[in-house]
Amino acid sequence: MSVNDKIILASRPEGVPSRENFEFVSEPLPQPQAGQALVRTLYLSVDPYMRGRMSDAKSYAPPYAVGDVIRGGAVGQVMESSDPRFAPGDIVSGTWGWQRYAAAETAHLMKVDPADGPISTSLHVVGMTGLTAYFGLLRIGDPQPGETVVVSGAAGAVGMIVGQIAKIKGARVVGIAGTERKVRYLKEELGFDEVIDYKAADNIQAALEQACPNGVDVYFDNVGGEISDAVLHLINRHARIPVCGQISLYNLQDQDVGPRIQPLLLKNTALMKGFLVGDYAAEAEEGRKELAGWVKKGLIQYEENIIEGFENTPDAFIGLFSGDNLGKQLVKVGEITEP
Amino acid sequence: MSVNDKIILASRPEGVPSRENFEFVSEPLPQPQAGQALVRTLYLSVDPYMRGRMSDAKSYAPPYAVGDVIRGGAVGQVMESSDPRFAPGDIVSGTWGWQRYAAAETAHLMKVDPADGPISTSLHVVGMTGLTAYFGLLRIGDPQPGETVVVSGAAGAVGMIVGQIAKIKGARVVGIAGTERKVRYLKEELGFDEVIDYKAADNIQAALEQACPNGVDVYFDNVGGEISDAVLHLINRHARIPVCGQISLYNLQDQDVGPRIQPLLLKNTALMKGFLVGDYAAEAEEGRKELAGWVKKGLIQYEENIIEGFENTPDAFIGLFSGDNLGKQLVKVGEITEP
Repeated sequence: MSVNDKIILASRPEGVPSRENFEFVSEPLPQPQAGQALVRTLYLSVDPYMRGRMSDAKSYAPPYAVGDVIRGGAVGQVMESSDPRFAPGDIVSGTWGWQRYAAAETAHLMKVDPADGPISTSLHVVGMTGLTAYFGLLRIGDPQPGETVVVSGAAGAVGMIVGQIAKIKGARVVGIAGTERKVRYLKEELGFDEVIDYKAADNIQAALEQACPNGVDVYFDNVGGEISDAVLHLINRHARIPVCGQISLYNLQDQDVGPRIQPLLLKNTALMKGFLVGDYAAEAEEGRKELAGWVKKGLIQYEENIIEGFENTPDAFIGLFSGDNLGKQLVKVGEITEP
Repeated sequence: MSVNDKIILASRPEGVPSRENFEFVSEPLPQPQAGQALVRTLYLSVDPYMRGRMSDAKSYAPPYAVGDVIRGGAVGQVMESSDPRFAPGDIVSGTWGWQRYAAAETAHLMKVDPADGPISTSLHVVGMTGLTAYFGLLRIGDPQPGETVVVSGAAGAVGMIVGQIAKIKGARVVGIAGTERKVRYLKEELGFDEVIDYKAADNIQAALEQACPNGVDVYFDNVGGEISDAVLHLINRHARIPVCGQISLYNLQDQDVGPRIQPLLLKNTALMKGFLVGDYAAEAEEGRKELAGWVKKGLIQYEENIIEGFENTPDAFIGLFSGDNLGKQLVKVGEITEP
């Protein structure tokens, strides 16, 4: 208990990350300073956007430094705190990342009430991924009843929430996902109207045309690349395209080329906007409440894919890029204990 | 006076339009029906967007039919009218296009007051091109004092108004244009802060970086293609990109390819939006008044390039694609006469 294990960035990945890019190091348990709390990690979140931070290219989040702990979403239990808002035993979420213990700034911690549901959901459906789906879809996509919403990466943590919120808003929802199991889950469990298996489809363009007879009003883009090219050919006048992720491109060494899209945006007077959940920080609490309400009513279901064991964190992250993940990928590191 | 001359689309252009695509035909003078006025053309507007309507591809405006008169902006004088709002002798603008006379729907005519300035300006700086610059820049680009606005096609009819409005709003304005004469005009006459001659620059990317040391906050895109690729590499967080035209692509036979831009929009949480001036029809009168006020105060200057003679209309249009035009290209067809 007096040793902390953490995972640092050993080297910057080229292409798909591999185990060699990460290194496990042990160090003395951190001592919380004023304004900090000592937390013990219970769950870690691994997310595609973290790949971007492993490169040193300019991006929306600062790159990780080689030798530093990998930062990312985490939920844990407070062990010591000098901040009266946090007591030993409290469950909190934060971004201390891939370490068993952390001296975390209390200003950046949020309390998680276990009575609201499984604490792991604070890392996805009522946390960052849920809010990403919520704000990107509602503030940029703004789906109207009867409109067609297409979401790529539909079986990903964000995508499956996007589709369900679009259904709540009365839209027709077409998902794009990559395995038969995912397609079945989205249609049968989550009520997507149509789901295209892009790996099985002979012709993704033709499959999309069949699934979207009235064109596409909102395209929530999680993947980029050729799938997006195909969807963009079907956009309607005044289409809205929230750009949330470009997972197909994260591991490319060179800038990808493809058909130019400005002519399509022009002739359809369409809007495309990249966004980050942080852009909507001022409204986050409102979004969290609405999401939690939808989850309690069963209007939003979720899927967790939990790998047990801190030592498996790099593998859980690397697995994000193989297309096997259904729902939110988490690593379980510890159990809640009595304070 | 009992014969009307008009120019019809003889065949759809492939690539750059040529004279063979147009045919002059004569027919009896049209008889205005109820709800129509007989107008005599004084000026015709030729605009790059008309190239799009000459193809039969789906676009924002319906394609011209082969054999039909080429529709487009025109200003003329009323000869006969059963609509009490229009009297013989009145000057009106409309879209009756390339013909000496037209029986025009009065519902689609707008009165032009010669006391407000030269009537030809109703075809550009206080007409469609002015409003295109106004709404695209202010409603989508929304430049703030001190921000950097880049405009491509800067010496075109829209581009030079964009730059001047951006200056009125306190922005730093960088234009991209294609000849030394245009560069000099934009800097010396219109007060652009920097103008890049993309034909003379060895390295457009390096020239842009030098001209935009603080990056690009607004990119008003009139041209598309490689010039836009270079600008997009310099966009700042929360950049706004009104897509107004893609003249570099209008004459291409196949869809052009280039670097994918979604990753740039994502990492900069940038907005790109295609638009048409018609999207802002409800606010057009407000825009027209503000533009006319700026013109009267000398805050917006304009350049007209007038070719005399109806018979030269196709050449005036074809010349738009050779990069020689400075300012608004017009064809003068007739003189105002006493009614």
